[in-house]
Amino acid sequence: MQVNVYLAGEIHNPWREQLRRQAGELSLPVTFTGPMENHDRSDNIGEEILGEQSSKIAKDEAASSINNLRTQILMTKSDVVIAFFGEQYKQWNSAMDAATAIAMSKPVILIRDPKLHHPLKELANKAQVVVETPDQALRALAYIFES
Amino acid sequence: MQVNVYLAGEIHNPWREQLRRQAGELSLPVTFTGPMENHDRSDNIGEEILGEQSSKIAKDEAASSINNLRTQILMTKSDVVIAFFGEQYKQWNSAMDAATAIAMSKPVILIRDPKLHHPLKELANKAQVVVETPDQALRALAYIFES
Amino acid sequence: MQVNVYLAGEIHNPWREQLRRQAGELSLPVTFTGPMENHDRSDNIGEEILGEQSSKIAKDEAASSINNLRTQILMTKSDVVIAFFGEQYKQWNSAMDAATAIAMSKPVILIRDPKLHHPLKELANKAQVVVETPDQALRALAYIFES
Amino acid sequence: MQVNVYLAGEIHNPWREQLRRQAGELSLPVTFTGPMENHDRSDNIGEEILGEQSSKIAKDEAASSINNLRTQILMTKSDVVIAFFGEQYKQWNSAMDAATAIAMSKPVILIRDPKLHHPLKELANKAQVVVETPDQALRALAYIFES
Amino acid sequence: MQVNVYLAGEIHNPWREQLRRQAGELSLPVTFTGPMENHDRSDNIGEEILGEQSSKIAKDEAASSINNLRTQILMTKSDVVIAFFGEQYKQWNSAMDAATAIAMSKPVILIRDPKLHHPLKELANKAQVVVETPDQALRALAYIFES
Amino acid sequence: MQVNVYLAGEIHNPWREQLRRQAGELSLPVTFTGPMENHDRSDNIGEEILGEQSSKIAKDEAASSINNLRTQILMTKSDVVIAFFGEQYKQWNSAMDAATAIAMSKPVILIRDPKLHHPLKELANKAQVVVETPDQALRALAYIFES
Amino acid sequence: MQVNVYLAGEIHNPWREQLRRQAGELSLPVTFTGPMENHDRSDNIGEEILGEQSSKIAKDEAASSINNLRTQILMTKSDVVIAFFGEQYKQWNSAMDAATAIAMSKPVILIRDPKLHHPLKELANKAQVVVETPDQALRALAYIFES
Amino acid sequence: MQVNVYLAGEIHNPWREQLRRQAGELSLPVTFTGPMENHDRSDNIGEEILGEQSSKIAKDEAASSINNLRTQILMTKSDVVIAFFGEQYKQWNSAMDAATAIAMSKPVILIRDPKLHHPLKELANKAQVVVETPDQALRALAYIFES
Repeated sequence: MQVNVYLAGEIHNPWREQLRRQAGELSLPVTFTGPMENHDRSDNIGEEILGEQSSKIAKDEAASSINNLRTQILMTKSDVVIAFFGEQYKQWNSAMDAATAIAMSKPVILIRDPKLHHPLKELANKAQVVVETPDQALRALAYIFES
Repeated sequence: MQVNVYLAGEIHNPWREQLRRQAGELSLPVTFTGPMENHDRSDNIGEEILGEQSSKIAKDEAASSINNLRTQILMTKSDVVIAFFGEQYKQWNSAMDAATAIAMSKPVILIRDPKLHHPLKELANKAQVVVETPDQALRALAYIFES
Repeated sequence: MQVNVYLAGEIHNPWREQLRRQAGELSLPVTFTGPMENHDRSDNIGEEILGEQSSKIAKDEAASSINNLRTQILMTKSDVVIAFFGEQYKQWNSAMDAATAIAMSKPVILIRDPKLHHPLKELANKAQVVVETPDQALRALAYIFES
Repeated sequence: MQVNVYLAGEIHNPWREQLRRQAGELSLPVTFTGPMENHDRSDNIGEEILGEQSSKIAKDEAASSINNLRTQILMTKSDVVIAFFGEQYKQWNSAMDAATAIAMSKPVILIRDPKLHHPLKELANKAQVVVETPDQALRALAYIFES
Repeated sequence: MQVNVYLAGEIHNPWREQLRRQAGELSLPVTFTGPMENHDRSDNIGEEILGEQSSKIAKDEAASSINNLRTQILMTKSDVVIAFFGEQYKQWNSAMDAATAIAMSKPVILIRDPKLHHPLKELANKAQVVVETPDQALRALAYIFES
Repeated sequence: MQVNVYLAGEIHNPWREQLRRQAGELSLPVTFTGPMENHDRSDNIGEEILGEQSSKIAKDEAASSINNLRTQILMTKSDVVIAFFGEQYKQWNSAMDAATAIAMSKPVILIRDPKLHHPLKELANKAQVVVETPDQALRALAYIFES
Repeated sequence: MQVNVYLAGEIHNPWREQLRRQAGELSLPVTFTGPMENHDRSDNIGEEILGEQSSKIAKDEAASSINNLRTQILMTKSDVVIAFFGEQYKQWNSAMDAATAIAMSKPVILIRDPKLHHPLKELANKAQVVVETPDQALRALAYIFES
Repeated sequence: MQVNVYLAGEIHNPWREQLRRQAGELSLPVTFTGPMENHDRSDNIGEEILGEQSSKIAKDEAASSINNLRTQILMTKSDVVIAFFGEQYKQWNSAMDAATAIAMSKPVILIRDPKLHHPLKELANKAQVVVETPDQALRALAYIFES
């Protein structure tokens, strides 16, 4: 039984690598997908496909329409979403992706440092599992395949 | 035809007052609901109902379970959600509420200063309407009742 | 038992007036809603609320975001949709609104001159009832209340 | 991860060929489906299966019931829909198919020449991505598989 | 708390009268709707609205499109469906309406003479309650309002 | 692209054989499922698994609970349903299965002799395609795979 | 804004009285519904309506079909469900009702003595709010109406 | 046609073994999943992944969040759920899992000793099939594959 996992959130941090490596070591039947991790490619994808836009907001709108296309297709195909929140950036898109997954009845495993708990408390309450490290998230995922 | 509007987001700013007042002046058939606007009450509601909790995280979890109860009931009854993002705070709960509304097929009107556009670009792309001021949001709302 | 009816399509033709008048004469317990019928207001609503836009396409995008907000709220509240197709204009928004209603499990009554049948054949096949005149649509609607 | 793509719209133009060829060159894990591209077969399929009908409208109704059968099965199996609008024909079935996909929560990539924007503005507002050429649509699709 | 009840099935038998009278005697807060009970009006409604059709099948198709319009609107507004099966007629539309209600998560109370049980066994298994008389159906309905 | 087809209705007639044979001859990528075609096994399955029941109605109820289990699992996995109505028997379970498929947004191809049209008119109106013979149904199915 | 509350669970204990009284004292705009609280009436309702059954299991089946009819109608109309678990009885129907509400996206407030937490831990994890007393549940409900 | 079966309920009894063995003997195309059957692992999984918790209730909450994650992923992938109720323990999680499956439109086969019928009567009424032994459940499952 193959499980698809969408890895939402933070792209300036190698947390996805750790999950992929550990899942590989355990030979878990898991396929990982996620957002474009090359930040420049992600920010510029609108203009790279559609050409120069008339303003920064128009450039952002073009990029986000294509990033959201990617997210919608990959998340719809996922069985579970793991979302990582770090200390930098607004990360409103991460909160949006996690909430969208929950509203689509896909369980979310939330990874965050405990000191981020207060601003994340409503999202943590909706997440199915809240952990502090990628290693804990991987172990929760591996538990699904234990018998 | 009565329209229910949930006012998500920012509770340290009188933006809701402006909407309520303008809607009253125009006699729009609109009912507004929203989160608890007394910040202390919102943060402490878990302990106020359930008693002292064992840690700050447990206190937060208790509060958010009751705040999310309120949001789920009121948002489910709404026809449209207006979400305001300001410059302070993480506002992950606001992003969560807006994304949840969108996933529930409720249209979202997003109010934000243009300088916040970059971090909000994915949410702006999913919102039905993006405006800069509460006055613009109210005018978009009023347009529904024009003939 | 009150029935809400969304009147989609063609806004350069007084077909809505006829429905409203006949429904009134029969005292049907029906509430009609529909798109903004003032064409200029509809085309300019984006700039009227959000200010001047950078291009004709940006102006159109701003207007359609607000027109679609209106349609989504009113159509969600409707029990049945009546869509009129005339001989002029592309009317892609009318086809979109009718198809959206059908996909939302709301029955559609399609009004069109028989000579438009060929290009409308797929939509006619999905519509619940196909008629040629507003009077026929009104009589189908009135039939719901007969006993 | 295989992605199914339904290619809606215009069948008198080789735009589908270009997408298929480019996807092949990039070895994208994509399966394309779409409507019957032989226009005569599409228009006559009702009578070819069910025998001669009593009128042109009955012939159209028979054909569209079978064309819509095909569309419903193939579109339900798709992960994303690409819709092309050209300058000829009413294309109300294309608008219907695109709107149906959106209402089924399938993202739509809309291809249209910018001069068609005004009549397409409401559909463009609902589409996830709007582009001008098949090449741009293919690049948006390819982006999903980049890492 | 008002409850809407759709009375599906058999229109050549006064079973609906009995339900309406008993509900009135008990002052139950119930609104009853149902199909057109005038059989001729029901069979001819297509031609009465749309004019003469080219064949008996075309006449039937026209009538059923309008009867199904009525059913879809009224059944969607109902909280519970009561379906009566008698010994005469094919009653495939009654089976269709009962099955549609069940698939829409509306509970069905099935009224049938026990000797009809064998051909109704699959539908009886899906119905929420199976009774033999309108009086029993009414008492099951009345039970909802007891405290 | 594999298509699953549930063959509902009439089990005293070899219509399924014809579909399977023709689909095999055309090498269509189709998987057929359907109800238990051994009538005695179907009627007795309740007692064969659960032991003797207290009455004919209890025996029927036991059998139909297991037949409906089968139908629900197989129909949920299907992409399209073909339903055959013959001249004998009540066939209320066939009408129920066809209506359930339609309510689950699965297209239905209805096979019936034209002389059955009047009692089937409401179901015919909801079916996506109405044909007279299994051969016509197979050709409508084959059309999905033409390009 | 009126809120409908279904009071699931335990019927041998006056917890519902307390909620109704406190809600009345606070003039909350709340309507309470719930299961039949007369235990004998609830156990015998099947035979009271349908006549004597052939066995205790058949009597139970008849009663539960009518009790579940009541629950389905009233719970579908509710905005929030409050479920009370006591120390006696199996209460599998209470667990079923609470889980059904959650799967229908209705928030559940769970009332239970802390010593019952271990067997209720999976349900507590899915409930939106977990409290120990009816008074706490009422206060969580009242919070929805504070501003 | 592969069928996924989630085996809910009782983990202190070898009933799952029997199903797996019999399915293997019959070479049924069936994949079984279910909860963690090692009771200690199940009760302690929260602390094993997240570290020591502050109380028994917090330990339970941590464990159940991870057990529910497992259940949600595996049950969502299942086509049918078999639930076993024994005489020991509260088994509220089993009732919750069975009710959740039913609300997700997945058919449930309920296995219980007849003497448990009274407390299980509402759940039995909602289950698609009620049997007394794992052997009977397996035979109902095998029936799906007979032709």
